[in-house]
Amino acid sequence: MKILLTNDDGIDSLGIITLKAALSGIGDVTVVAPLFEQSAAGHGITIKRALRIVKYYKDDQFFGFAVDGTPADCVKLGINTIMRTPPDLVVSGINHGSNTATNIIYSGTVSAAREAAILGHHGIAFSINSREAANIDTLAPICAKITKKFYETGIRDGLTINVNFPDIPASKIKGILLTRQGNSRFEDEYELRFDHIGRESHQLTGILADLDAHDAKTDHYALMNNYISVTPIKLDLTDYDYLHELEKNNLGEIISQSN
Amino acid sequence: MKILLTNDDGIDSLGIITLKAALSGIGDVTVVAPLFEQSAAGHGITIKRALRIVKYYKDDQFFGFAVDGTPADCVKLGINTIMRTPPDLVVSGINHGSNTATNIIYSGTVSAAREAAILGHHGIAFSINSREAANIDTLAPICAKITKKFYETGIRDGLTINVNFPDIPASKIKGILLTRQGNSRFEDEYELRFDHIGRESHQLTGILADLDAHDAKTDHYALMNNYISVTPIKLDLTDYDYLHELEKNNLGEIISQSN
Repeated sequence: MKILLTNDDGIDSLGIITLKAALSGIGDVTVVAPLFEQSAAGHGITIKRALRIVKYYKDDQFFGFAVDGTPADCVKLGINTIMRTPPDLVVSGINHGSNTATNIIYSGTVSAAREAAILGHHGIAFSINSREAANIDTLAPICAKITKKFYETGIRDGLTINVNFPDIPASKIKGILLTRQGNSRFEDEYELRFDHIGRESHQLTGILADLDAHDAKTDHYALMNNYISVTPIKLDLTDYDYLHELEKNNLGEIISQSN
Repeated sequence: MKILLTNDDGIDSLGIITLKAALSGIGDVTVVAPLFEQSAAGHGITIKRALRIVKYYKDDQFFGFAVDGTPADCVKLGINTIMRTPPDLVVSGINHGSNTATNIIYSGTVSAAREAAILGHHGIAFSINSREAANIDTLAPICAKITKKFYETGIRDGLTINVNFPDIPASKIKGILLTRQGNSRFEDEYELRFDHIGRESHQLTGILADLDAHDAKTDHYALMNNYISVTPIKLDLTDYDYLHELEKNNLGEIISQSN
């Protein structure tokens, strides 16, 4: 099986290095990843300038292709320009930090896997619930097993698999929960800073507050209870219930009054 | 009513200038928009550096606050730092170019309105189906009417309203259709370019191919048939049907075999 591997922490992060090693046991891995960190890049793509690709070496060995763009750019460019034959799966991660609940909307890691779905391929995103990723060595082999399983069973067109790990040794993992995306809210704070010549600037701080982590069906519940969380996400953002409810609003009046 | 107005084309674009004028007839408008164009920024936010805010003047008159960040940054900073009292509605646009179908995932305009929902507020995104936006003067008053209508009726928590206009005179608009997000696929092409010192680089070209524009329930169908399209979108990306289907996959085996 052919795997396109990317991430958002950058091509020299522990997460992608460890995951490449684990995935190499189950397939041919081509790494196409951002040269520099792209955390919180969301599903941005680069349209105003041309992208550059450089070969990146680790310990004097060719490791992969580094791109001066976003995670979604890496998937587009990887499939279109770098790989000679299309990948069977696109894998993104392992991200340093969880991508659960509303947070996945900001996530470059999840967006990269989702870009595969937009292009008619399939993607899986892996994240671990801490910046340090202390237990990544014991968890990466499980990523490889999950990847292999989805390669064998297939993923429905248009869908993306979002996987999160608690940062505990594999032996302590209680199991895998199929979860829904939880609900969280960013409680923003901007801290006033002064730049190198004393001008005011504003640094985002603040926390992401979980609104339904008590609900055993959610992704953040799974992590807090030592389970791996697996959530299928889709491209269609329409709220169908509210679509029907909006019929009551008589928006049509606006046009008949305007004409 | 208090309106926070933003966009992704930048604070000096015709779309936001025209929309500010139209919305000023129904409320107090505070403009907080990117200083430079942020098209295709997706739902990226700036976390690695502090943001700067500069007052932007048009024709020697104060027009709004320009931010060196993404559209979603503008909404966060506008609500948290710039506005003294929270807005009743966040409005984004008018975008030069439609934001329909899968394309909305890349859209800075739609993401800005959606950021309002993440913060516990409500947002509406407006786009017009051409770069030139030739009929924007006759269409902007309809944006104001739609905004007023949603202010009066309210928007359900967590939802965002995505509105697209065909670029035709208001008198030719056939009506408003409540639509679902259509399905489209980016048929990527990267054009080989050479930079200022002759190094290879890759410029994204290619087209977004509509896969279901024949379906009268979709947003792109509405535009092609001279209707305004109104689509409610949500924050929860979970595919619940597939979530149940995944139970058959026995992912749990992976962990029992690992331990």
